[in-house]
Amino acid sequence: MLGNTLEAVRNCVPLVHNITNYVTVNDVANVLLACGGSPIMSAEPDDVVDITSICGGLNINIGTLTRRSIEGMFVAGTKAGELGHPIVLDPVGAGASALRTSTALELMEKLPLTAIRGNVSEIKTLALGSGTTKGVDADVADAVTEDNLDTMVAFAKDFAKKTDAIIAITGAIDLVADGEHCYVIRNGRPEMSKITGTGCQLSGMMTAYLVANPDNRLEAAAAAVCVMGLAGEIAWASMQPGEGNASYRIRIIDAIYNMDAETLNKGANYELR
Amino acid sequence: MLGNTLEAVRNCVPLVHNITNYVTVNDVANVLLACGGSPIMSAEPDDVVDITSICGGLNINIGTLTRRSIEGMFVAGTKAGELGHPIVLDPVGAGASALRTSTALELMEKLPLTAIRGNVSEIKTLALGSGTTKGVDADVADAVTEDNLDTMVAFAKDFAKKTDAIIAITGAIDLVADGEHCYVIRNGRPEMSKITGTGCQLSGMMTAYLVANPDNRLEAAAAAVCVMGLAGEIAWASMQPGEGNASYRIRIIDAIYNMDAETLNKGANYELR
Amino acid sequence: MLGNTLEAVRNCVPLVHNITNYVTVNDVANVLLACGGSPIMSAEPDDVVDITSICGGLNINIGTLTRRSIEGMFVAGTKAGELGHPIVLDPVGAGASALRTSTALELMEKLPLTAIRGNVSEIKTLALGSGTTKGVDADVADAVTEDNLDTMVAFAKDFAKKTDAIIAITGAIDLVADGEHCYVIRNGRPEMSKITGTGCQLSGMMTAYLVANPDNRLEAAAAAVCVMGLAGEIAWASMQPGEGNASYRIRIIDAIYNMDAETLNKGANYELR
Repeated sequence: MLGNTLEAVRNCVPLVHNITNYVTVNDVANVLLACGGSPIMSAEPDDVVDITSICGGLNINIGTLTRRSIEGMFVAGTKAGELGHPIVLDPVGAGASALRTSTALELMEKLPLTAIRGNVSEIKTLALGSGTTKGVDADVADAVTEDNLDTMVAFAKDFAKKTDAIIAITGAIDLVADGEHCYVIRNGRPEMSKITGTGCQLSGMMTAYLVANPDNRLEAAAAAVCVMGLAGEIAWASMQPGEGNASYRIRIIDAIYNMDAETLNKGANYELR
Repeated sequence: MLGNTLEAVRNCVPLVHNITNYVTVNDVANVLLACGGSPIMSAEPDDVVDITSICGGLNINIGTLTRRSIEGMFVAGTKAGELGHPIVLDPVGAGASALRTSTALELMEKLPLTAIRGNVSEIKTLALGSGTTKGVDADVADAVTEDNLDTMVAFAKDFAKKTDAIIAITGAIDLVADGEHCYVIRNGRPEMSKITGTGCQLSGMMTAYLVANPDNRLEAAAAAVCVMGLAGEIAWASMQPGEGNASYRIRIIDAIYNMDAETLNKGANYELR
Repeated sequence: MLGNTLEAVRNCVPLVHNITNYVTVNDVANVLLACGGSPIMSAEPDDVVDITSICGGLNINIGTLTRRSIEGMFVAGTKAGELGHPIVLDPVGAGASALRTSTALELMEKLPLTAIRGNVSEIKTLALGSGTTKGVDADVADAVTEDNLDTMVAFAKDFAKKTDAIIAITGAIDLVADGEHCYVIRNGRPEMSKITGTGCQLSGMMTAYLVANPDNRLEAAAAAVCVMGLAGEIAWASMQPGEGNASYRIRIIDAIYNMDAETLNKGANYELR
């Protein structure tokens, strides 16, 4: 049951090193605390080896990459790899600029990534060199739908096999695959796309789940995706008249803070293919 | 009617490239989503050309400028200019440091700015080389008041003519002028100055309004100012006992999220001079 | 009475220059506004001399230090020292990396610090070269408790004497000491550790208190610690069902915004040793 992976996070209190963008960094930190982990941020190349060494996992997000932070990603990732820490890559905007695409591809090539989490356009860009990223949002033409689900599940498994990483494609329908199995997840709300950073938050939280669940990582990654989507549902149900995306943002983090194994087991909406 | 410009934003979903400070960047992103646009942030010189090319407009905010981000502003601005994208400059702290003042002046000189939005001290600094910026807040001695309104309207129009840009001076009374006309706007609440970043948020939102309303840009810029001020009024009216500036910040973004054309048309308080 | 120091902040509206991390910077800015001060952020070495010159105090936080921002800290700190401005150091993560530890030690050595505020592991690292910082959180083994209180009070006074700075060690029990006296403060809630940045917020607010109370700085620093803890208590008492750490974060800043001298005088829970 997915609930066990949640409890493992709360028991383990995984310390997660984040090299992430300055847009959503505060939410990433508060979501890591909400889910039971502990965040630390450091991107300076001369700082990251020490920091990643005291952590349990590394979350790399290229949302506002700089030449200097890119260097930090490789230095930290190399060390984290040596230490056997799980590494999550969030390729924000891959496909939207040459620098983002090439950085994400090089990170994939050089680091032993445990998971890659992005929207469908970003993941397609990494897998196929195509995909039409619209800024930091997925293009509608790329979307995972009930109609193309079989194809997309096969695509996710295939890319997971090639990269030897868990592939998490999030959107209206979420896919979380390794080379053999794919969780198809139908939690979440469309209004979540009206808040900046739910994807970034999920990548941070997924890192904590991977650290705390070394023996069932695919399930842990899927659980993190379910927690995020379910929190979006719970938060939406609690919205009051006059509230909008700013209150929704607060309510989602609150829902992650209050999530327990039972709520997750009841509310997670997925099938395994 | 201003409401039409709001609906144009919601229909167009303008993608706005922001080079902005790390203090208020999350709020800028969420306000852009709230008003119907979509944000992307990138300041790395090697990234900004590709990013600005897929966007509809560029918002440059010098609030926490670095040597490297300044370079990004010029590179991005040059490309955005070539593409005919609207460019908004928010000269945060111009007058407070030589680097900020000279950077803002050079951006004005070299880039085809569509609008400049700042407080009265910042705008005076750019126009006159004087103005006494108190940190990132305007000096009281500079304020636009009912007493000096004629002078200030003339000043705004004159500076707009010289720069060939819309000049938006925001404070207790807001002025939004081109060389011919000036909107004098009396929306907003004094308590908005107890939240960091309502000015930054407005500059981001104004960029989206300019992208979505290419044929009536002065009206669009004025509409963005009215939306911000009116959201401040609506949010204040909804405050509960015990709430303070942090809740007010959330409520303002929520009010922008829920703003529609009818509410704007009814609540906008302006005259055209 | 501590309440006088609060009123001094609201009357003085101290402008505080912050060189701080990008994780919690927005909260630091909003807390400075909430308590009656005014924030400005600048880390670029070519910008900081002008900025710090128009401010009343400087808050240096090494939470996401870079080689460039470290340079900014020394340049700004040197100027602030020349001007006689109070300088607060928040040594985030000292002990967690060699760069953080050496930077904090060098800042202590070269700048005339007015106060150093950190958790017990960070302060022990600076004082003893030991302490086992767990990321950005204190190690439980280091905690100030009723059992080791006499020892820790002596330690704080001794370190204050050596550094000629106010030493603020915050945790379940807070200590605020100069060479002669030590405030032992028992305000606050354990749930505050589930929000990122309450320490950063406190360091910013403490800077404002020191600026506004030049003649009773130890009392002012202690008052800032009491305000933060008391705000945490008031905010917790107002929590609604379903709320979590994100709402708590908002409520704490709101409570600081609404804090007055009478509330502080009644609620502050401290003894002077």
